[in-house]
Formats: sequence, structure tokens, C-alpha cells
Amino acid sequence: MQALKEASRAGGAATPPSIFDANLDVEFVITFRYSNAGSTAQTGDSKTPEEQLERLLHTLDLAGLRTVVRDGGNGSLLIFTRIRSEKKLLGEIYRSRVRDWLHGIRPAAPEKETQQSLENEPITDGERLRLVYSLITLPNSEGGAGITPKQGEWSLVESIFALHDHDFNKKWLKDWSTKWIIGPEDLKVIRDRFGEKVAFYFAWIQWYFIALTVPAAIGIFAYLFLPAYSSFFAICNCLWSVVFVEYWKRQEVDLAVQWGSRHCSTVQRKRAEFQFDTEVSDPVTGEKIRHFPAYRRLLRQSVQVPFALFAASCLAAIIAGVFSIEIFLVEVYNGPLKMILKFLPTVLLSVFIPIVSTILTGFATRLTEFENYENQDSYEAALTQKIFILNFITGYFPLFLTAFIYVPFGEVLVPYLDVLNVTVQHFGHDEKYTTSDTGFQINPSRLKAQMIYFVVTAQVVGFVVETIVPQLKRTVFKKAKEFDSRRKGLSTETVLDPPDEKKFLDRVRHEAELDVYDVTVDLREMCMQFGYLTLFSPIWPVTAVSFLINNLVEIRGDAAKICMEMQRPIPNRADSIGPWLHNLSFLTWLGSISSAALVYMFSSAESEGGPPKDLTLYGLLFSIMLSEHVYFGARFIVSYALSKVQSIGLETERKEKFMVRKRYLEESFGTENELIRQEAEKTGGEYTGVGGVSSTQDGRPLDDGALSEKFWRSQSAWQDSVNAGVQIMDIVRGKDKKNQ
Amino acid sequence: MQALKEASRAGGAATPPSIFDANLDVEFVITFRYSNAGSTAQTGDSKTPEEQLERLLHTLDLAGLRTVVRDGGNGSLLIFTRIRSEKKLLGEIYRSRVRDWLHGIRPAAPEKETQQSLENEPITDGERLRLVYSLITLPNSEGGAGITPKQGEWSLVESIFALHDHDFNKKWLKDWSTKWIIGPEDLKVIRDRFGEKVAFYFAWIQWYFIALTVPAAIGIFAYLFLPAYSSFFAICNCLWSVVFVEYWKRQEVDLAVQWGSRHCSTVQRKRAEFQFDTEVSDPVTGEKIRHFPAYRRLLRQSVQVPFALFAASCLAAIIAGVFSIEIFLVEVYNGPLKMILKFLPTVLLSVFIPIVSTILTGFATRLTEFENYENQDSYEAALTQKIFILNFITGYFPLFLTAFIYVPFGEVLVPYLDVLNVTVQHFGHDEKYTTSDTGFQINPSRLKAQMIYFVVTAQVVGFVVETIVPQLKRTVFKKAKEFDSRRKGLSTETVLDPPDEKKFLDRVRHEAELDVYDVTVDLREMCMQFGYLTLFSPIWPVTAVSFLINNLVEIRGDAAKICMEMQRPIPNRADSIGPWLHNLSFLTWLGSISSAALVYMFSSAESEGGPPKDLTLYGLLFSIMLSEHVYFGARFIVSYALSKVQSIGLETERKEKFMVRKRYLEESFGTENELIRQEAEKTGGEYTGVGGVSSTQDGRPLDDGALSEKFWRSQSAWQDSVNAGVQIMDIVRGKDKKNQ
Repeated sequence: MQALKEASRAGGAATPPSIFDANLDVEFVITFRYSNAGSTAQTGDSKTPEEQLERLLHTLDLAGLRTVVRDGGNGSLLIFTRIRSEKKLLGEIYRSRVRDWLHGIRPAAPEKETQQSLENEPITDGERLRLVYSLITLPNSEGGAGITPKQGEWSLVESIFALHDHDFNKKWLKDWSTKWIIGPEDLKVIRDRFGEKVAFYFAWIQWYFIALTVPAAIGIFAYLFLPAYSSFFAICNCLWSVVFVEYWKRQEVDLAVQWGSRHCSTVQRKRAEFQFDTEVSDPVTGEKIRHFPAYRRLLRQSVQVPFALFAASCLAAIIAGVFSIEIFLVEVYNGPLKMILKFLPTVLLSVFIPIVSTILTGFATRLTEFENYENQDSYEAALTQKIFILNFITGYFPLFLTAFIYVPFGEVLVPYLDVLNVTVQHFGHDEKYTTSDTGFQINPSRLKAQMIYFVVTAQVVGFVVETIVPQLKRTVFKKAKEFDSRRKGLSTETVLDPPDEKKFLDRVRHEAELDVYDVTVDLREMCMQFGYLTLFSPIWPVTAVSFLINNLVEIRGDAAKICMEMQRPIPNRADSIGPWLHNLSFLTWLGSISSAALVYMFSSAESEGGPPKDLTLYGLLFSIMLSEHVYFGARFIVSYALSKVQSIGLETERKEKFMVRKRYLEESFGTENELIRQEAEKTGGEYTGVGGVSSTQDGRPLDDGALSEKFWRSQSAWQDSVNAGVQIMDIVRGKDKKNQ
Repeated sequence: MQALKEASRAGGAATPPSIFDANLDVEFVITFRYSNAGSTAQTGDSKTPEEQLERLLHTLDLAGLRTVVRDGGNGSLLIFTRIRSEKKLLGEIYRSRVRDWLHGIRPAAPEKETQQSLENEPITDGERLRLVYSLITLPNSEGGAGITPKQGEWSLVESIFALHDHDFNKKWLKDWSTKWIIGPEDLKVIRDRFGEKVAFYFAWIQWYFIALTVPAAIGIFAYLFLPAYSSFFAICNCLWSVVFVEYWKRQEVDLAVQWGSRHCSTVQRKRAEFQFDTEVSDPVTGEKIRHFPAYRRLLRQSVQVPFALFAASCLAAIIAGVFSIEIFLVEVYNGPLKMILKFLPTVLLSVFIPIVSTILTGFATRLTEFENYENQDSYEAALTQKIFILNFITGYFPLFLTAFIYVPFGEVLVPYLDVLNVTVQHFGHDEKYTTSDTGFQINPSRLKAQMIYFVVTAQVVGFVVETIVPQLKRTVFKKAKEFDSRRKGLSTETVLDPPDEKKFLDRVRHEAELDVYDVTVDLREMCMQFGYLTLFSPIWPVTAVSFLINNLVEIRGDAAKICMEMQRPIPNRADSIGPWLHNLSFLTWLGSISSAALVYMFSSAESEGGPPKDLTLYGLLFSIMLSEHVYFGARFIVSYALSKVQSIGLETERKEKFMVRKRYLEESFGTENELIRQEAEKTGGEYTGVGGVSSTQDGRPLDDGALSEKFWRSQSAWQDSVNAGVQIMDIVRGKDKKNQ
């Protein structure tokens, strides 16, 4: 651990790195594909590559970046950039921190901040990269070079990426491969390297991993000692999911505060594609901002309802269709070629689903662009939500189908699938083909088998695919490019590499071909997994166990992926896992419904997974309603209780805010006395007839001032009042004495 | 309007007030009942009244208050207090504003604030009174005199109240009696006089009044053109309630910001009764605070679940019991005395319900005290919630009973009520007493009749009671006191009134006997009313109309009540209508369920309100589930849409915050350049081998620094890079040309 921290600080200065590992202080590499210059489709303007290159390098220079150009092979150039001097960097840091502070991300005033942070807390790699990246990509209006890959005047700029820090990566992987738990220290390291957004993913998956132990334990217990579809297990599972999500919300805040990125979503990365109606001045900051009326966006967003319905029904239809074919082939059909035909459904699914998904994803992207978001985060969030819907259907619908259609109504519906009855008879296998006559029996093990497939097989497959596909893609693309450049008549082997840089440049060219890491993909995968747990785990109680094992690998796998399969991620900031939080609580809510339904339906079946016996619709509805409302109640209580328990993060934040104010106050104190002195002079020090309740504010005495004076003077000192009071009491008592 | 504002400023300076109206600059009056001194039960210590009076007056003097003592009659003294000088007041204002600012209630730093506010915005009466009141009541630790009526050493202090400003009151009532709409200006006036808490009530009821026009219109339409229990009306009504509540949330924030009381609940009035375990230092402010662990309070709070169940079932039982008796007498019983017996249920209810409620309220109070809240607001909130449960049962249960028990199951259940069968027969009215033989028919008009009773009659009655009861109570208490003092042998007629003060003192004595105004009571009344609308209005669509009329009067009535029936309210601050907000959305949620149930059940009945025909349990459950989920969806959409639409309040707040920061920044600018200069000196101005991505932070060059140098120096100016790039391109192209 310490070693790792060391590494993250000194970035491998510990061991003299080989030339291969060294980054030669390069901060970002820009790939410039001049071989594309021909296709004017891509180049917005018909400038020659030379001209564009010149403009590019000049712009970078103006932005305060040094540049070195090398051959990237296959008709591309590698432009190595670094910030010119620490001076510049400090300026950037200062600016960014001022911005943060003005927007209330960091509580304390910046100038103090900067000095301090330069002394006690050095600039992290993450921060440095983030700043330099924004320097390159931000629009000129925001003080950047405004370089937007593949867009408009930068049509030939292919990508902007940072170089991996191999020493760190090695240490990181080594360190994680040897430990079970990822501690806050490790998260801090990730955050310093890859930014808060990636760090949040690892923080979440780590918390998920730890939390999984609970349902795993309960699951094993249920598996061993409880009947199938035990309501006890379902309830525990549901409650656990509630606590899991609610508690994560708190952790999120704590981490955000700890990492100083709370509310950072308020200072967002503007989207270059954003189209504005009018240019108004920001009511808050007074800066000119491009404005797009909210109601219009709301209108456009409303389009996603029909889209969601359409997309969902598309996928659902395909799945249902293939499903019924499968049922028919596997459980009804007894004709020839059954062995081969069996695999037809799998083939169909793995052909159609990807195609349709891709098309729909395309729609979703277009729709999200149409919604015209002002900044990157909200754009990504909106897109994520749409894609989540697709994943939801493809991921969960098959199980819904089996659990709530096939098993209960199978015996009624399946015979209708027997459309081939006639055709089959031709083969003269009549005696074989009798299932539908003797009445079809649904296959009780089907549901569980399917669940196990999704929970174990699919996970493993997914993991493998995740690691292999990129490599395949890469090699294919490489070949394609080589072919392309050959076609264009460019030499394929790179030229003019200074001998001592050869290895280094080869490595950079390799990294240039890697994919860009998108953390939301990994997040989605994990959230989908969480969904299986909340929605269906009553089907197979040990689900959590398999996830526990899977995620132990997953965490390290993702780390390895980032290090080896992907370009170094641009360290973006984040103050949460974004839209996934909502999806998680959505899944818990849906879980409360589906578990209830599963338990109610299948606990009654005499054979596990068999068709449910003597069910009533109102019984089902009632159990669903009950569990749903118990869920709402539980969630309310949990979040209330958690809100009452001190949150370190919020406390720290409040404290910092308070301290800043206090300091400020101390600086400008003495004003009170000042004020009072002034007042004293005005009023001549001693008491004056100031306005009472019914007086004007400037102390002008009322018309009944005289009387008021008299009234108050009647007992000028407090002792007088005492005497008066005592007197009254005596008289009241005394008088009556006389009366006697 | 203008006149009113004028009045609120100059507090009646406009017309020279008669001595009766003048307040003689008195801020607070403390009633000191020495006649209680005898009963040691009340006096914690056995001090004589003289001693306690002396201590009291001395404490007040030390707190910077002037005092005048007069006879209060019936063995009590009136202690008139006012703050000694404007000086003192300014000090108070300053302190309070610093505290506000430190806790983030006001965005801007105080000293600027105070000066400004003294210049452009004068101190409002409300602010003044609040400050003086806190000066009197706050514990010494908080810088007050720590006078807590009827507690411990202040056992003889009966009450602390401010004097009404009659000129203002007159103008206020006159003004409101002549206008339909209470505008923001009027609310501002109320806030300036009676504080935010009261102002929020009026703001809310005003918004409620305006919003009611919508369901009223729909209601009339439904009443005229739609069939009874039309689902269209129910849906509209439900959606309206959602929008109503969600939109109010925004208004609340806007008002709170506008009145500068946002987050003011963070600086709370400490409860004197609060018992602390340990004294810890506040993690935020560092001040010593008395601490009571959260988990222990949570545990104690959990007690309220059984309490709620118990209380609810108690009341429910009584209501159900009386209800069945009523049914029996009215619709089954045909024996003698029917005319008289008819009224028995009403009598029973009006006897039992109050008694039981009082007992339960007592429990609730005890429970809330047991929960040991640290500050007044949370205490009141907790108590409110408990009492709300009681009101909920007493208010709505009868209708639930009729709608969901009596009407559907009446024909089955009612015959069982025929317990008197035998006894009645004795009277030889056999032929009369036959209903239960011919089969009992439920009374279709009953439900609507009951609804109308609650919506119209009860409202009117309540309003009358509200205005009369206090007077009654007062006169009774007065008599009691007089009797008491006679018993104690004290003279009843007051003595020693300076002749020219007589009228004034009489008036003060009168105000001393008035009740303390508790705004939550009025709020509760209105929320309960809102409940009838959301829960039951399908029964009688024009409900909203009657409420509209009722509230037009209600608003003015409450104003009049505050002015004439109650002591002048202590102007407390608030940033919302507190726990009632939750209750409102709770009611909307419940409304979505109950309306659905009502519509499903009764729209099928052939006679309006008659027993429902061919219902299915799953049909009912399904319609409930459907409408509930539609409700959730609608609420989500509405709140999302509203969150996207700009909120003036939040914007203003952000802006102010931003401006403060900006100002602060400008004050302490130039630091950037400063920093950079330092850095420049350190680094010798020109570029130095600062660490790149894989370098240490202090700019120490890496081991591969030399190579890095070479690498970067190879193209030191950007033009070099351009040339290099062009060169590569040429070669790559050129070379291949050679190849051909």
C-alpha cells in the first residue's frame, strides 16, 4: 500500500524506469490523421492537412503548450504536448479553483487554498491532466484552445489521449492482486490518478462487494435450510437492497466532500454541440451564457416516452418470439433435426438482439442530441437512462417471461405453438409427436436454469468478452487502417523514428489504438447485476454468492482493463455515480414487487419451479401491494434514521464553510463596536426616547411620547419598580386586612 | 394598501392615537402572579413573591431592559419592559445577524448588512420584538435573561406577551375586508409584524384559496354534466392536488429567501426542558453544546408506532361503536322514543371524542417530551405529527366507515345490530319492528349527507366555535381568578392606577387574559380541510366550492382572531410550514388511493351512493394500484418539470452567495499574479523541467530527464513541429511515389 502511494506520488521515480516506461514528461498526445484529408465528407473545410496541422500547432502554442511531432504510422501524426511551464499550470490551477469556489464547490477562498495546497498537498496527476485537457479542449470563450476532435475545423484531429504511467499501473495491479479489500486509501490513489468519476465507480463496486456478503450469507442459509421461494429470504433480500442504496447515498456525499468535488456538477463541461436560442446573461454570475428555454427541452424530452415504449416493445417482441420458438423446439417438437434446431433460438437471439440494440441505441443517441443538453454530464445522464431501458428489457425480460407467462400459463399457451403439427406428421413420426395430445407439461427446472444462466454463465461470458473483444477489434482496425493507407498509397512502416525513441514511439502508437475508457459501461454492467439480485434472487437464493465471487475478480479485471486494454482515462470530476443512483433505487422498488409476485406464485407450487397451484388474482395483487408498501415504509424509515445519524462528509463541509465565515468575520471585526459608537454619538450615549413597538424606526418619539416619557420615568431604576411592586402587593393584601 | 404599509412603518403615527391605542413604547409585558406564591407545588423554591419579583426585575435590568410595575388585578402584577437604548438593540441585531450569517442563513457578511439595513431597510417590528423576546427568554448561556414562565425559579411569572398595535390592526382588518386577494405586499406586512411563521400560514392559505378555484370549476362542471363518481373528476382532482403541493414547495423556498429566513431552522430556539447526556463541543462551530445521542432518540421515537396504533384504534373503536348505534337507531330501530334516541349518537360522540382526544393528546405530549428534542421547532414538529394522527382518525374515519364498510357490507352487517330485537318486541310494536325481517336497505343518501356535514356544517360550526369559545373561556377564567383571589382575601378591583393610565392599563389587563396564538392550530384546520378534498371529493364534487367560500371568510376571520381574540403573537421565524408539508403530500397520496376506490365501487351502483353492484376484489385492488402508480408517476414528472423551471428564490440565493464571494475575491485579488511571480522567481522565469505526468510534483526532473530534454528540445518552437510534421507527410507520400 505504502509502496503504491509512494508510486502514485513519485510516479515511478523510485525505480529508474526503462525508456519504454518513461513518458518523457508528455502530458497529452494528439493523433492527426492526414490520410483522411482526401475524404472531404469528414473535413468541414477543404483545407490541406499541412494548413490544418499548422493551425493546430499554432493554436496549441498560443494556449501555452509545447509540441513535438512524430510519425504515427498509417498516415497519421503523433503530436506530443506538454504545458510550457509551471507558471502557466499554476495560473490554470488558480483559475479553476477560483471558479470552483465561486460556484461553491470548495468552501474556502482560493488564494489561501492555492498557497496551502502547493505547500502541503501537491497537485495530483489527475488534477494536472484535467487542467491541461480542459486547456486543450475548452472553447476559446472558456479560455481553452477549443480543439474538438473530428469536428469542424479539427476534422483531422482523431483523438486526444494521455499516456499511461506504466510504473504506477504495474504497482497498482500488483498491489490489488494481493489484497482482498480496496480501502479508502486505494480509492484516494485512483482518484488522484484517474479522477473522481472513475474513483466513484471503484468506490461503489467495492461497497457493493462488501455489502454482498450479507445476502450471500442469507442466501446460503436459505439454500440449505429454507424451502424454495421462502418469503423470509425475499424480505431479507429486499430490506438489504434498501439499506444498501440508502447507505450508499451517504457514502457518496462523504466521498464527494472528502475529494472536494461536491456540487462539482454545477460547474459543467459545456457541450460543443449545444445549440442555443438566445444569448442571455446568467442571472447568477452575470456572465453571458447561451440559453435554451427549459420548457422546450421538457417538450423534447417528452418524446422519449413513445421511444421507450417502442424500443421496449421491439426487443420484447423479438425475445418473446424467439422464446416461443425455443419452447416449441425444445419441449414440444419431437420431429427430426431436433438436435440441430435446438440451437436455432440461441443463434437467432445472438444475431437479432445486437443488431436491434445497436439500431435503437442509435435512435437513443440521436434523440438525446435532439434534447440538446447544455453540458456533458446531463447529456450523458440522459443517454444513460435511455440505454438503461434497452438493457433492462434485454437483461430481465426473458426471466419475466418465464416466471410470469411461461410457468403459470404455459400449459394453456404452449399447445398453440404447435403450428407445425401437420408438417411434422409428414415425417411419419406420429407416435413420437404426441406431447401436445397428452397435454404439455411445463419444464419446472427451466426458470432456475435460465436464472443460473444469467447469473453465472452470462457474467463469465461477459467478463471474457470484455477482455477479448477490444483486442480483436484493435487488430481488425489496425489491419483496416493498414489496408486503407496502402490503398491511399502510404507507406505502412513508420519512418524517421529517432533510434533511442523507437520503443517509446511504438508504445505510444499502440496506446493510440486502444479504446477510450467509458466508466458508465462498467457501472451499467454492475447495476444490471444488482438488478438480478433484487428482482429474481428468490428463484436461486445463492445468486449473491456467485456475484460475490464474480465481483472479486471484476474489480481487479476492470483495473487491469483500464491499465492494458484502454487509453488512460481523462480524469473527469464527479460528485456521484450519476443517474445510476436512481436506477438502483428503481430496481429495489421493482424488486419489492417482483419478489413478492415470485414468492406468492411459486411457494404454492408442489414441485419447485412447477406451475403454481390454486392462485387467486386478488391474492397476487394483494401480496404485491403489501410488499410494495412495506418497501416504501422501510425506505422512509431507513433514510430517516440515516439522516439523523451524523454524516462525516456533511459535517466536514458545514464546518469548513463555518470556519471560512468565522475567519472572514475575525478579519473584519470591531464593526459592532464601531456601529454602537456611531449610534452612541447619535443618541448622546444615555437613554433616549427610542421608538417602541408602535414607533417609527428612526427613533422619532411618538405623539404620545410625552405620556410615554412620564410613564417610564415614574420608575426609572429597577429598584423603584421593585418597591412599586411590593407596595401594590402590600396594599392589595393590607387593604383586605383592614376590611376584616 | 399603501396606507397599510405606511401604517406598518409608522405604526399609527399617521393619526395621533388615543391614549387607549398607544402602547407607550412598551415592548413586552410580563404578568407576575404573586397570589400563586402560596401553592408551593408551583414554586420550585419557597422564595417569597417579593424576593422573586426583585430577582426578576434585577435580571431584566441586567439584560438591559427598563421596567415599570403596575397592578394587574386578581393578585397579579404587570411588569412593563422595554429595551434600554437603541445602542443595546443594535448590538442585539448585529449579534443575531452574525449568528444567522455564520449558520448560512444570510449569504452576505453581517457588518455590511447591518449598516445597509439600518440605512435602506429599517428594523421591522417583528425583528425588534423577536430580538427583545429572545433577550428576555434565552438562557444566560445564549446571552438572554433566561426567564421561562412558570418554570423553576420563575414559577410566579405567568406569561410574557407583546401589546397589540391597535392602529395597525384596525387598518389591517379594514384593508383585508375590502380586497379579494392577499398579495405578496400584504404578506410582507404580516411578516414584518408577526414574523415569518404566521406569514407562512397566510401565504399558504392564500395560495390554497387561489388554487381552489381550479377544483371548484371542475367540480361544478362535474356536478352539472358528469355522472356521479366520474373517474374524470377524480383524476383531475388528484392531479390538481399533486401540482398544488409540488408548486407550494417552490413558493415556500421563494418566500423563505425573499424573507431572508431560509435554513433559519438550523439556528433553533433551544428548549429549556432538553436533557443532555454529555456536553460535547459542536464539530461545526466548536462551541460547547449539550448532546443527546441520535440513536437513543430514534429508539424513543420508535415508541410512537405502538402509540399511534393504540390511539387510532381507541378513537376508531369509539367512532365505529357510536356509528353502529346510530345506524341501529336511525335505520333499524322503530321502537318508541326514536325521536329522542336519534340524538343519542351525536351526544355520545360530542361527549366521548373530546375527552378521549384530550387524554390521547396528553399522552402524545408526554411522549414527545420523552423523545427529548433539543430545540423548539423539532419538538413542535414531532408533537404536530402525533396530533395529526388523532385528527386524522376523528376527521376522516367516519367517512371511511360509511364508504367502505357501511355501504358495501351494510346489508350483511346491519342485521347483526338487531340486538334489541327481543326487548323491542315487548312494547308490542311487532308490526312496526320489521325492517330486519324484510331485509334491511342501506340508506344511499347517507354517505353524501355525511360528506356535506363534514364539508359545510362542520366547517361553519368550527369557525363559530373558534371565535366564541375563547371569549367564553376568558370570562370563565376571569370569574375563577376573581373567586380565587377573593378566597385568598385579595381585593378584586385594581388599585393605584394613575388616572391618565387607567384606560391603557385596563386594556393591557384585558390583553393579558387573551389566549396565546398558536398558528399550527389554524394550519391543522386547513390541512384537514384539504384532506376532505383529496380523499372524498368524488362523493360530492362541489366540495371545493364550499371550501372556496369558507376560506374567503376564514382568512379574514383568522386575521380578526389574531387581532382581537389572541395575544399579539411572538414573531417567530420559519422557513416553511413545517411538518404540514409532509402531511399534505401524504394526503395527496392517500387521496389517489381512496378516490380510486370510491370511483371503482360507487360508479357501478345503479342508485347514487347505493350499494355497489358486481364488484370484484381484484378489480378494486387493481384500480387502486393503477391510480396509486399513476399518482407516483405524476408527482415525479411534476416535481421534475418544476425543478427545471427557474425558481426565483433559489436563483436569488445563488446570486447573492456568488456576489458575496465575488466581492471578497475582488478585495483580495492580485494573488494570482503574486503567486506566479513567486513561481517565476523559483523557476527562473523560463521553462524548467517540470514533472510531466510521471514526474514528482516538486518539479524534480526524472531519471530519464536527459532524454526528455533531448526529446523536447528536438522541436523547441511550434514552427519546428510544423516543419517536422510536413516533412513526415512528404516522406511518407514521397517514399511511396518512389516505390511506384
